[in-house]
Amino acid sequence: MSGSIFGTLFKVINWGESHGPAVGAVVDGCPAGLPLSEADIQPLLDKRKPGQSHLVTQRKESDTVQILSGVVDGITTGTPISLYIPNQSQRSKDYHNMQQVFRPSHADFTYFKKYGLRDVAGGGRSSARITAGWVAAGAIAMKILDTEGIQIMAWVSQVGNIKTNLNANDITTELIEHSATRCPDKKQAKLMEQKILEVRKQGDTIGGCIRCKVKHVPVGLGEPVYDKLEADLAKAMLSINASKGFTIGSGFEGVELQGSEHNDLFINDGDSIKTKTNRSGGIQGGISNGMDIDFSVAFKPVSTLLMPQSTVDTEGNEQILQVKGRHDPCVVPRAVPIVEAMAALVLCDHLLRSRCSKLR
Amino acid sequence: MSGSIFGTLFKVINWGESHGPAVGAVVDGCPAGLPLSEADIQPLLDKRKPGQSHLVTQRKESDTVQILSGVVDGITTGTPISLYIPNQSQRSKDYHNMQQVFRPSHADFTYFKKYGLRDVAGGGRSSARITAGWVAAGAIAMKILDTEGIQIMAWVSQVGNIKTNLNANDITTELIEHSATRCPDKKQAKLMEQKILEVRKQGDTIGGCIRCKVKHVPVGLGEPVYDKLEADLAKAMLSINASKGFTIGSGFEGVELQGSEHNDLFINDGDSIKTKTNRSGGIQGGISNGMDIDFSVAFKPVSTLLMPQSTVDTEGNEQILQVKGRHDPCVVPRAVPIVEAMAALVLCDHLLRSRCSKLR
Amino acid sequence: MSGSIFGTLFKVINWGESHGPAVGAVVDGCPAGLPLSEADIQPLLDKRKPGQSHLVTQRKESDTVQILSGVVDGITTGTPISLYIPNQSQRSKDYHNMQQVFRPSHADFTYFKKYGLRDVAGGGRSSARITAGWVAAGAIAMKILDTEGIQIMAWVSQVGNIKTNLNANDITTELIEHSATRCPDKKQAKLMEQKILEVRKQGDTIGGCIRCKVKHVPVGLGEPVYDKLEADLAKAMLSINASKGFTIGSGFEGVELQGSEHNDLFINDGDSIKTKTNRSGGIQGGISNGMDIDFSVAFKPVSTLLMPQSTVDTEGNEQILQVKGRHDPCVVPRAVPIVEAMAALVLCDHLLRSRCSKLR
Amino acid sequence: MSGSIFGTLFKVINWGESHGPAVGAVVDGCPAGLPLSEADIQPLLDKRKPGQSHLVTQRKESDTVQILSGVVDGITTGTPISLYIPNQSQRSKDYHNMQQVFRPSHADFTYFKKYGLRDVAGGGRSSARITAGWVAAGAIAMKILDTEGIQIMAWVSQVGNIKTNLNANDITTELIEHSATRCPDKKQAKLMEQKILEVRKQGDTIGGCIRCKVKHVPVGLGEPVYDKLEADLAKAMLSINASKGFTIGSGFEGVELQGSEHNDLFINDGDSIKTKTNRSGGIQGGISNGMDIDFSVAFKPVSTLLMPQSTVDTEGNEQILQVKGRHDPCVVPRAVPIVEAMAALVLCDHLLRSRCSKLR
Repeated sequence: MSGSIFGTLFKVINWGESHGPAVGAVVDGCPAGLPLSEADIQPLLDKRKPGQSHLVTQRKESDTVQILSGVVDGITTGTPISLYIPNQSQRSKDYHNMQQVFRPSHADFTYFKKYGLRDVAGGGRSSARITAGWVAAGAIAMKILDTEGIQIMAWVSQVGNIKTNLNANDITTELIEHSATRCPDKKQAKLMEQKILEVRKQGDTIGGCIRCKVKHVPVGLGEPVYDKLEADLAKAMLSINASKGFTIGSGFEGVELQGSEHNDLFINDGDSIKTKTNRSGGIQGGISNGMDIDFSVAFKPVSTLLMPQSTVDTEGNEQILQVKGRHDPCVVPRAVPIVEAMAALVLCDHLLRSRCSKLR
Repeated sequence: MSGSIFGTLFKVINWGESHGPAVGAVVDGCPAGLPLSEADIQPLLDKRKPGQSHLVTQRKESDTVQILSGVVDGITTGTPISLYIPNQSQRSKDYHNMQQVFRPSHADFTYFKKYGLRDVAGGGRSSARITAGWVAAGAIAMKILDTEGIQIMAWVSQVGNIKTNLNANDITTELIEHSATRCPDKKQAKLMEQKILEVRKQGDTIGGCIRCKVKHVPVGLGEPVYDKLEADLAKAMLSINASKGFTIGSGFEGVELQGSEHNDLFINDGDSIKTKTNRSGGIQGGISNGMDIDFSVAFKPVSTLLMPQSTVDTEGNEQILQVKGRHDPCVVPRAVPIVEAMAALVLCDHLLRSRCSKLR
Repeated sequence: MSGSIFGTLFKVINWGESHGPAVGAVVDGCPAGLPLSEADIQPLLDKRKPGQSHLVTQRKESDTVQILSGVVDGITTGTPISLYIPNQSQRSKDYHNMQQVFRPSHADFTYFKKYGLRDVAGGGRSSARITAGWVAAGAIAMKILDTEGIQIMAWVSQVGNIKTNLNANDITTELIEHSATRCPDKKQAKLMEQKILEVRKQGDTIGGCIRCKVKHVPVGLGEPVYDKLEADLAKAMLSINASKGFTIGSGFEGVELQGSEHNDLFINDGDSIKTKTNRSGGIQGGISNGMDIDFSVAFKPVSTLLMPQSTVDTEGNEQILQVKGRHDPCVVPRAVPIVEAMAALVLCDHLLRSRCSKLR
Repeated sequence: MSGSIFGTLFKVINWGESHGPAVGAVVDGCPAGLPLSEADIQPLLDKRKPGQSHLVTQRKESDTVQILSGVVDGITTGTPISLYIPNQSQRSKDYHNMQQVFRPSHADFTYFKKYGLRDVAGGGRSSARITAGWVAAGAIAMKILDTEGIQIMAWVSQVGNIKTNLNANDITTELIEHSATRCPDKKQAKLMEQKILEVRKQGDTIGGCIRCKVKHVPVGLGEPVYDKLEADLAKAMLSINASKGFTIGSGFEGVELQGSEHNDLFINDGDSIKTKTNRSGGIQGGISNGMDIDFSVAFKPVSTLLMPQSTVDTEGNEQILQVKGRHDPCVVPRAVPIVEAMAALVLCDHLLRSRCSKLR
């Protein structure tokens, strides 16, 4: 019960530490009959991996995934899929001076107090490195969603105070991948890039936002009461390292509206029932209504800085900490595939759950 | 698997519909030995119940809870606690004209599509009435938290575009309960009240925000990876009817800061290790760090309006809907105890989970 | 986590004590669209209720079930079904002399040590009275199984050392219900009845066995590895009060056979693939093979005797206990519907689980 | 939800197939602070591994376990422990002639029907090879139990119709390991050995029983109602390949007794409350009473025979099957550590669960 299992029918069990031999995940509940190979998973891992651009950490990891079980002759068998990703570039010595010192706004202090010990190297289990396993599992979920036409697309919508003004409907994967920032707005992407390089030069970091759209969602995913689709998405997003907020549809801005301005009126567009507007963000009463699911996630600036900070050690003595190591100056470019993967896990789980809603 | 079970060790199973004979909850996992009677639960239910002020729905419900099991001679026995709250003021006829029509931004359409049928009266299972069971269960969780000194306090921080400017440390329960709005800022509370009465007169509704603080939290609640404390709080909050967003600590504002501005530096205050600032909102790496937990929830304007709205019926024909019935013009005053209850469920669950973190 | 929740997709949450106001259950995960009323549930409860014959306890309980939620206009809505069964004949004073004394082979001692307190009246949560809720939930599961043609039939196969010799294929519900013993073998049923009346006269009790067949099971229910169909049946059966053993197919007798004698050879009977024999008991590799599921359950003699027994009290002093109260001299006649109900819960859960085995 | 997850607080997730690159398990919920290395796990794996004696399959597997996560500097960190056991001796070609044919009493037919495909080599997921992962996980559970003095000991009590007559209290690990049969009764062990060698020569197989005792169990493990300790043990044992029955305490023999003969009378032995006899098998009302837990498991003869058998193929045509490959003539000698491991998982899970029974 270490909090490492996600999902109810499509479950992911995540394991591994930053500086151990490998990180991995087991996917339990993948239906039999899905064509699957490492080549389906690797591209999403490549979007997440370190060292992919000048904006991210220069730790060298190929993040090459191996499927150890659950697939025979390129087809899933309905049994657990074990995913294995070796760690290649551990540099535990970077962490020697942190042995007794709590890095500010990191998990050092809380792990130490919770467990009575901690894995110092690379932050151990609290490292964003372990999201490699999440992403690998998410790639399988995406393949299942793809069989029903469901598509997930996330992008960087803000870095520091620089925001995109693009209409969400104009955004394409090509535009997103055009810039190392993963912001589809060319002009703003350039400003974001400058900002990230500037804070990196200072040894500092900067926050950002990611927005995500899920298209072609069938009506009926999500459960009433506690397992509302937006509730499970919120949990998924807040489980990502450094995330501090989640909004669906109108979010905090909808608060200022009156119901007569906010309500999404139903219309018949010939083929199906739609809504004129989508302030609901594609979910009503916890259940998808067929409109695009549309949510945003806030990420704080990375807490590991390459500048001196005051802190305390395990004895409570004040210390000045000077961190070494290879770190991201801004988390959002690499968090895009993580947001997509977690969204895929939630949707895939609810897709399977929806098979049991009605008597046949 | 209807999404009606919340928690892992301290579990709540919620049942009931707006216009059935009763709503209720079963609490599974309450430790033996807790003094408990209906008198411990009723006050929180009274904060949630309809008809308590001129700002809320005038549906008359005493919301009187009965404990049917799990307590003998005023002490919990460690077995499930069944909580029963009779419905008294069903007026199903108010809903006759909605039988074939989907109310905008309500759950009518999604339930109908998901289940092939729906319980029209009062919205059935999608009604906020079922949160009575959540609140009753939350009151038990609060009693357990109270044995460890943990205290939860929520208040209305925004209605429409009216916000409080009060320092969170100056807020007391007395100030919150001073106004029917549950905003502790007397001046702003008055403006909020005017706003709510004004939209009610129009047959319209308005959104709002609730902020919640949890004090005296021990270090070590929450699990790494997926069951981070903030992730479970986010899920809990997004499961509340009409909620559209969640932030912890610096939230979406922290996005604009650099790490050197955002990091909470550790200090030794003599008795314990604290942080100078609390932009983390009391949680680091998914685990409580002993500072106040501090989060906010956005609520959209209630979707049920007492003014005509265009919509479609189950056949896809366009219709003008004129709703009758008794509804809240603004959900936040009554949502305060729901936010508190859900926060209590999350914290109590993690308090029990934390008992298994270390080898004895 | 008091052990009161059963199932993964079709879940039952059970609550209540022997001498509280009521016992009940919440069924979570029943698909929408099932016609359901109290009249579907009551007959199975009547098979379990006390006072139904001269062979069972004379406690008077009508065990009248009320459905409090989850059903509208006689159809399930896909939301939790709350089942409520009032207790009518509490006689807590029968238990006054047991307040400080542990009844032999009962749960008094273990509950007291586990929880630090116990609910003396009627054994509280350890009473077989709480199986009323199990049976009510099982009746709903049976209705779902019935829509797929799956039928469950259990009977008394042994009381003391008296066994039936009937061929299982000749057994009908009529034969089973012909005798208050629920043994379909008229001659042996008479001997069993005499035995039960004889031990009752002595203030003593006697053990027995129940055998259960499930017919028309589709191939493919059950999961590999830990959630094998027989594993879940074994758990279900061993959770019934007083049960001490479970066998599937050849059971302990199969141990003495060689593989060449034991193996069930596949044959093609024209319509489908069957096996010549059924020593597997209808399950192979944890998954139903389409043959009848065939298992047996052993029940020890009821531990509550109406004769003096030596024991100790909560202080450890030796005591002579003389129990009063109304008790069953033999548990198996009333346990037949409990076995059927628990089998139904397991099969219904796996029926829903099987919907997610394959990609669509 | 492929049935590959066991436990509630101490969870094991099992993955792998007979002829894939590896089998493994992830242990989630192991408390922090336990000294742990591969050397703690290997001995139990060695008891299970093939090729260890002339009585078992000659497949050559060293079953060398690697710990990939969750342990730093020889101490568990409270995070998931990933266990990896490479497969070395896959001989998939042994299975070519089975591609289209269903082996009698094996899982071939049911897997094929459930999933629409199957992993023929070595039985894929249905192979007993995957129990290596169970045993590795169980070894960790045993280390935890050991910190509280709880000890588990299983032995072969029957092969074919040959049974031991030894008093259970006289049995020691040395006696058990003295014979390759793992029967502690030297005389009967010899007869069992002859029987196994005899059936092997015939290309046939034979069934057997295993009995298991758990000593020094604290009072209070197990939960009322569905998660009774014996119910979870029954599930664990029936999940083991080839098991067909489970009894606790008096089992099917207790059925013939009267309550006055069967009840275990409480006595005060000075230090603690005990029972004179132990027909309850150490569990009353689902909860351990401090006496030895005592249960037995029946295993059918292995279904893979090295003699011709009639069967059908995937087209329904009758076929004569002649199996090649390396198989066990009798499963019980190698099943002893599996029974011990599964018992350890159940007890460790309930040990952690018991931490939450009472308010502190």
